[in-house]
Amino acid sequence: MSIIEETIKRIGPVDAALIKMAEARQQQLTKPPGSLGRLEEIANRLCAIQKTLEPTAAGRRIVIFAADHGVAAEGVSAYPPEVTAQMVANFCAGGAAINALAQVAQSELCVVDIGVAGSIPDLAANQTGHDCRGPVARSARFASRRVRAGTRNMTRGAAMTEDEMWSALRAGLELAEAATSEGITLIGLGEMGIGNTTAASAVTAALTGLEPSRVTGRGTGADDATFARKVKAVKAALDINKPDGGDALDVLRKVGGLEIAGLCGLCLGAAAMRRAIITDGFIATAGAALAVRLCPNVSGYIFAAHLSPEPGHAVLLDLINQRPILDLEMRLGEGTGAALAMNIIAAAVAAFTEMATFESAGVTKRG
Amino acid sequence: MSIIEETIKRIGPVDAALIKMAEARQQQLTKPPGSLGRLEEIANRLCAIQKTLEPTAAGRRIVIFAADHGVAAEGVSAYPPEVTAQMVANFCAGGAAINALAQVAQSELCVVDIGVAGSIPDLAANQTGHDCRGPVARSARFASRRVRAGTRNMTRGAAMTEDEMWSALRAGLELAEAATSEGITLIGLGEMGIGNTTAASAVTAALTGLEPSRVTGRGTGADDATFARKVKAVKAALDINKPDGGDALDVLRKVGGLEIAGLCGLCLGAAAMRRAIITDGFIATAGAALAVRLCPNVSGYIFAAHLSPEPGHAVLLDLINQRPILDLEMRLGEGTGAALAMNIIAAAVAAFTEMATFESAGVTKRG
Repeated sequence: MSIIEETIKRIGPVDAALIKMAEARQQQLTKPPGSLGRLEEIANRLCAIQKTLEPTAAGRRIVIFAADHGVAAEGVSAYPPEVTAQMVANFCAGGAAINALAQVAQSELCVVDIGVAGSIPDLAANQTGHDCRGPVARSARFASRRVRAGTRNMTRGAAMTEDEMWSALRAGLELAEAATSEGITLIGLGEMGIGNTTAASAVTAALTGLEPSRVTGRGTGADDATFARKVKAVKAALDINKPDGGDALDVLRKVGGLEIAGLCGLCLGAAAMRRAIITDGFIATAGAALAVRLCPNVSGYIFAAHLSPEPGHAVLLDLINQRPILDLEMRLGEGTGAALAMNIIAAAVAAFTEMATFESAGVTKRG
Repeated sequence: MSIIEETIKRIGPVDAALIKMAEARQQQLTKPPGSLGRLEEIANRLCAIQKTLEPTAAGRRIVIFAADHGVAAEGVSAYPPEVTAQMVANFCAGGAAINALAQVAQSELCVVDIGVAGSIPDLAANQTGHDCRGPVARSARFASRRVRAGTRNMTRGAAMTEDEMWSALRAGLELAEAATSEGITLIGLGEMGIGNTTAASAVTAALTGLEPSRVTGRGTGADDATFARKVKAVKAALDINKPDGGDALDVLRKVGGLEIAGLCGLCLGAAAMRRAIITDGFIATAGAALAVRLCPNVSGYIFAAHLSPEPGHAVLLDLINQRPILDLEMRLGEGTGAALAMNIIAAAVAAFTEMATFESAGVTKRG
């Protein structure tokens, strides 16, 4: 039995009895029933995930998997591939959007080279081998888990070998285990990789059977010619690889990416250890969707941070059966949506755990 | 010239040149252009409000105006009127939803009795006269600015006298001045008052000419009979008072509330001092809408925190020409939506002020 199969066996459904108990508790708090809207739903489900009526949102970490994509050679992105390594250096130095947003979210930030093609410039002080532990800081901790210097070009054949895919999945599982042992309760998904919306579109088309043109968007800002090459590349990858949409690992290996595999492994590991998963945009949700296809129980552990304008994202949110918390027209990735959602989840928990009851506060209940 | 007229004369439009400069700055930051979506829009406008390319979201305060409503005698709420005073005590003791959420938002919290009918139970340690100053803490500071023990029943005549209205408006102006002199940059609107969705519906119908049934909702959870009485009360108040929708002060005095007047004054004062205003739900937005009707330039200083399910709320957001940041089906008031939005605004500012540029980080710009 593979480590993935072992992990999946450990993933039970979230605790429906706890949701009922949490709903009953919400009725006692000094507010009209249901008036905190989706904050109540979020707190109640966190109770079910953590199997407690005293949920916590303390211990937050966003894990950014960075990887390159052979399909970038097809001219599918507005940016050249070297930007992946440059942005990893930017994360480590504290200069990216996610650095600023993670700090507002009081979240640790860990960037994992799971398949960057080039060498990472100026990588110095933050390097910690494979350890993501660290205080909340503007700069990210760096973990080196490079499986391969980018995937193969999926328009010519499978993006990964079996071994490469398993290595990336295992890296995700291990990072979930490390987070758990280090007291993390909210795990945010992040990613960076030039070309990775193309892979996410191929994964989405394969999982859903929808046309590539329906689930392919402009990514970081593709112009018309780039967009046309992107749709063509997704079609070509599906034609040559013929991934089996019912077999998530077949889809992942043939048209996925190393960061998508890492994200999938991270979701499975987090769910197995009853940690809440906060998705981000299109690529992060592709990783989560593969995990849900492998194990439908994973859905209950996921909070969908936001809705991206990428056309495939809403499709994937349907697939994982989660409604986005935010809709701010963000399409950056890196975990930026996850960071924003963490404060909403923290607020939901704070209201649930800190509010007075009608009885304790001497407030008259409704007539 | 009244103090309101003097204040309005000081409210200029937000600085359009600063918005252009902020947009140009956004293009230099290490992210695809526009990829932070509405966060970019928020940061750019805050630059225009504060007239700087180094905006700040530090110094946050939510001001909760609490007041009772004579119209509560018509049986328009699921809760009895004594809950207003009880909830003020709950705010002061730290037990309400807004106490938990303000702390997550790192916001000060100030509760102002501007027209509560009864005595406030257990009001002790937090009382500070008319001073809202205080550190961020779970409990709210209390300010006593009671104009009258609740409004008159608007189904029988005007809710307020001219003098009462001016006193409440002045209290709002003075609280904006105090916040400014105490270093506040984000001012959140909050309110508490049994019966106040009925007043807000009457204000909305008067300002827009829409039918009462179109802008009246279930508030804190009115049942069918209560809801029918509520629509009837709004109609009766409009019939007997005949407020002039083109004259915001006529609307406010006849069918508004003391907390709505306080909120209106707070918005005018905040805009005059170039402070950002964060609205909350239906009632808070009614106060903001009256301020915008008095002075259209106020709109540029407002960030609409969220969309409430109250049917009149979307109507008022159209009137103030602002899109809500969040849509979490919240309908509690107290400033709870404003608190959540403060962290989004803080994130927008952090990204704008802390991110590296393509040049400084050595990241290749798009081809």
